[in-house]
Amino acid sequence: MRREPKQDRSRATRQRLLEATIDCLAELGWSATTVGVVAERAGVSRGATQHHFPTREELITAALEFMFDSRMDMVRSESIDLPFGPARTEAVVARLVEQYTGSLFRAALQVWTAAAADPELRARIVPLEERFGRVAHRVAVEELGADGSDPVVHRMVQATLDLARGLGLADVLTDDSRRRAEIVRHWAAQLDTVIDPARRRPATEGSAR
Amino acid sequence: MRREPKQDRSRATRQRLLEATIDCLAELGWSATTVGVVAERAGVSRGATQHHFPTREELITAALEFMFDSRMDMVRSESIDLPFGPARTEAVVARLVEQYTGSLFRAALQVWTAAAADPELRARIVPLEERFGRVAHRVAVEELGADGSDPVVHRMVQATLDLARGLGLADVLTDDSRRRAEIVRHWAAQLDTVIDPARRRPATEGSAR
Repeated sequence: MRREPKQDRSRATRQRLLEATIDCLAELGWSATTVGVVAERAGVSRGATQHHFPTREELITAALEFMFDSRMDMVRSESIDLPFGPARTEAVVARLVEQYTGSLFRAALQVWTAAAADPELRARIVPLEERFGRVAHRVAVEELGADGSDPVVHRMVQATLDLARGLGLADVLTDDSRRRAEIVRHWAAQLDTVIDPARRRPATEGSAR
Repeated sequence: MRREPKQDRSRATRQRLLEATIDCLAELGWSATTVGVVAERAGVSRGATQHHFPTREELITAALEFMFDSRMDMVRSESIDLPFGPARTEAVVARLVEQYTGSLFRAALQVWTAAAADPELRARIVPLEERFGRVAHRVAVEELGADGSDPVVHRMVQATLDLARGLGLADVLTDDSRRRAEIVRHWAAQLDTVIDPARRRPATEGSAR
């Protein structure tokens, strides 16, 4: 098999830019995250950066998409390690909530907040957000081993994602991890009451996977 | 009783500035909300504005405090109209969630997000946020007629506030009201299972008020 080092290099450059964009947004905020600042942090020339991403908006939306998709791939690949039985719900909720406290959430928060006061940016972000919401919901249902066609389960998983978003927002200014752990435990117990335990056994005909 | 028209005028000017600050933050975002823009929207001279609020930070934090306190006063004064019995929980949760979808929440979101990338602003906002969190929790417990000393109730009310914050964030970019109404109904049913119904009757010795 022939390697294509130039393509590999190009892909690596692109990925460095996307990761630097998320870090800049999370640390420096929306206004300070310019293409120049990102290029410098990534160690990529201005010219190469503009070759990959002609505009700041393209860079930022590509960064959110790339990081979200990588995160979902990771969640799916790790789910094999989760316990089965009652401990699974708490483990899934805890991991889901953690996704809303890292730099991806902080970066996304900067973009959402800017989009709230900028109709053009909002038009770019809304379809992205809708896709993220659908995928996050589907992955959460899979992880829980729940029946997504049950309307009560559907709504409770949505509420879990809403809760996770709210907990993430509470964590933006202060370290809220102790309180969060207790909320997660209580919430998981509530969620557990609506998930059919028969579905939670591995590899049965009733599995939702 | 002697009226003091000059003091009244001063108070009215102050309030107009605070309300204009919230509107500007919610509509125009953090960067665009300058003292000049707020003064113009409020119809107050630059000099009078600076007399009331020497810095932009003072204006913005005073606006958040004033609006939050007014909101809590309103919630308390309206609670007499809420039904008793099982419908109360849903009514309280619905009203609580609505508080996170108006211009006060949108304005606060702009400030939190800016503070996330600005240590000086963060130092001003964190104590404010802690007070808001405590008061909002206490008022929610009162409204629900629940026993705040019960640790399960305490956590479930916290989760309700976290959920409300997450639902508010979901509503920033798109109108999420239909989905939200369903989540509120489902969550209120969950919350109802942990509230002792005996406490929900008006004017009994077991009342938490």
